[in-house]
Amino acid sequence: MKKKNISRIKSGITAPAGFFANGIHSGIKKKNLDLGVIYSEKPCTTVGCFTRNIVKAAPVLFSKENINKGIQAVIVNSGNANACTGKRGYNDTKSIAQLTAELLNISEKKILTCSTGVIGKYLPVNRIKRGIKRLVPLLDKKGYANMAQAILTTDTKKKEIAVQFSIKGKQVKMAGIAKGSGMIAPDMATLLAFITSDLNIEKRVLKDLFSDIIEQTFNKITIDGDMSTNDSVIMMCNGYADNRCVTKNDKKEIKIIYEHLFFIMDYLARELVKDGEGITKVIKVCVNQARSLKEAKKIAFKIANSPLVKTAVYGCDANWGRILASAGAAGVNFNPDQVEIKFGSYSLYKKGVPVSFSEKELKQYLKKREIDININLKQGRESFSVFSTDLTEEYIQINAHYRS
Amino acid sequence: MKKKNISRIKSGITAPAGFFANGIHSGIKKKNLDLGVIYSEKPCTTVGCFTRNIVKAAPVLFSKENINKGIQAVIVNSGNANACTGKRGYNDTKSIAQLTAELLNISEKKILTCSTGVIGKYLPVNRIKRGIKRLVPLLDKKGYANMAQAILTTDTKKKEIAVQFSIKGKQVKMAGIAKGSGMIAPDMATLLAFITSDLNIEKRVLKDLFSDIIEQTFNKITIDGDMSTNDSVIMMCNGYADNRCVTKNDKKEIKIIYEHLFFIMDYLARELVKDGEGITKVIKVCVNQARSLKEAKKIAFKIANSPLVKTAVYGCDANWGRILASAGAAGVNFNPDQVEIKFGSYSLYKKGVPVSFSEKELKQYLKKREIDININLKQGRESFSVFSTDLTEEYIQINAHYRS
Repeated sequence: MKKKNISRIKSGITAPAGFFANGIHSGIKKKNLDLGVIYSEKPCTTVGCFTRNIVKAAPVLFSKENINKGIQAVIVNSGNANACTGKRGYNDTKSIAQLTAELLNISEKKILTCSTGVIGKYLPVNRIKRGIKRLVPLLDKKGYANMAQAILTTDTKKKEIAVQFSIKGKQVKMAGIAKGSGMIAPDMATLLAFITSDLNIEKRVLKDLFSDIIEQTFNKITIDGDMSTNDSVIMMCNGYADNRCVTKNDKKEIKIIYEHLFFIMDYLARELVKDGEGITKVIKVCVNQARSLKEAKKIAFKIANSPLVKTAVYGCDANWGRILASAGAAGVNFNPDQVEIKFGSYSLYKKGVPVSFSEKELKQYLKKREIDININLKQGRESFSVFSTDLTEEYIQINAHYRS
Repeated sequence: MKKKNISRIKSGITAPAGFFANGIHSGIKKKNLDLGVIYSEKPCTTVGCFTRNIVKAAPVLFSKENINKGIQAVIVNSGNANACTGKRGYNDTKSIAQLTAELLNISEKKILTCSTGVIGKYLPVNRIKRGIKRLVPLLDKKGYANMAQAILTTDTKKKEIAVQFSIKGKQVKMAGIAKGSGMIAPDMATLLAFITSDLNIEKRVLKDLFSDIIEQTFNKITIDGDMSTNDSVIMMCNGYADNRCVTKNDKKEIKIIYEHLFFIMDYLARELVKDGEGITKVIKVCVNQARSLKEAKKIAFKIANSPLVKTAVYGCDANWGRILASAGAAGVNFNPDQVEIKFGSYSLYKKGVPVSFSEKELKQYLKKREIDININLKQGRESFSVFSTDLTEEYIQINAHYRS
């Protein structure tokens, strides 16, 4: 999709009408912002996608119950995931929602909660509650940057974007923020993302758009193949733009919304990969001419998560043999003598034999910050691509001492 | 199995009667030994297990054809895997086998070939052939250490072991060597192992024992979750011990053979893990009380291959939350509120809640060189354990520049 169709605006999650937000330091982390709220003046048509991990954090369990109840606010903390904390963890997240609801003068059922950070520690509830009391009065149109900051963990920078477009003669705004960094994998591990819009849209239509785009954006990225207990991607539409409600018959409008929502989610997903823990390069693994999407996906993720492929790319080593070996271990049947492997436009293996290449030229290519790995199976028509990263000493350093 | 039943002898792959070996530097590598031969004076009852990767190296394809033809010799090179090299690669391995056969005055069909090293490069065939001409005349009972050395790649030391025992009044010897280091994973990725014995045994019986023990040893280890194109584990029995042939009715003898073969393969598998690339610790992941072996295995490998678990152990961080999160992402259904997680004997999570523990004591435990992770699902009777390693900066360094 071309960027030129998209009108970006300089703002964040509060760009759409009727949304307010802010973030503060409540004391979960040593000094960085760690608590944020997004609030809508009106109940929102809300859709969400949550981790498929069997082990779900307390806020995920709580939010899944509320998601269809006309959400008006999301309270998010970083620094502690409130995961694997049992009944007490659930009660903690519920009491946080209750206090937020009380201060906003809405029902507790209209609140979603999200947490990210260390697993297996109880939340410092009293500290957070004192934080909420300071935070709610700060809700503001200008609070978007603090909100985007407050959800981060090992991320090195905030990820936010806002756009505007017209629907049925009305101006609509749509915005998103996200955090990720490590543990990002198939099915959106440790990823939080929030999307707001003042669009008026039927829930069913929004849900289809949202699910479809999730598959093509957040579910196409991987950093280390791990999957978290806390993933949540949430989209809230409050209808403030006052356009006539978009229904399944509004093909033209749906196309426009699709383009903009895709733009936002694709942007956030790419920003997450680019800010992967300790990475120096983004790797796009594209599997072409597979017999089925499922097979293309299996091979793409197997290559994208291979430590040997990731370290080779880190070392600017055109070790295509590891790519083929990794594809061959994906549990998909193919004929290695048909396969072609390319780094960018450089073909390195074709029809069962190595293609001679200039190591110097390849080294040069591999020094880029974005590397394309293309593998063509030549046995069908399906393609799938995944965004991944290299694997570096810094990843080890970050993750060896995460709780310290 | 207790070691005290096992009588080890100070020798290597040539310990059993009728076996000879040696290793030399042929010039594939810059200076280390890179070419070895194991030779038996008599054709052997031979069984083998080869990579299940779709992409199989030329020597694997060649050896699979010959394995049932009364093998007398194995020629092995390190420094080049002869994988992804098409028809030419196959002809190269065949011509090496032909020359070896000619010099040993046996049929080419009685030869197996194995290669390990860089993928996607043609073998320096002429150099290897000159090497073979020097090597064959050096075949000797004392050549075992050179042979064990010649098969290594990034391994830091050779792995060899020999034992003796009695079968039907005759003394039998059995010995093994192996190489591994990186790319070791389910289904024995980049692992070469050779086992010799002068035992006289029916092929069917040997095959059953061998397959059974492979599952419990080499298929229980993982270093980085990758799977190679060249894995081969080969066992040759030449019958020189002159015991009456062991058949399926010889329960007592089969038990003794099982114990000794298990001892050898278990020893080699553990040595491989201990010498994993850049590791500082061996991690034993044990999943207990699963509903099925398959489910126990899935969870054990998911945890054992998790970069986040591996880096936490490296950093001596008792981050049990990552273990539970990883288990939950294995695609197996279980109730997190039932699960117990232990580091060694320290229980850290039980009945859905964290157990308070002394970080200091745990740190002390995690400083050991061998770490036990136990996860009890409390929903069945099946158990499975996997040997894995931590993940360190040195792994990255070794693999970022492997081809240089």
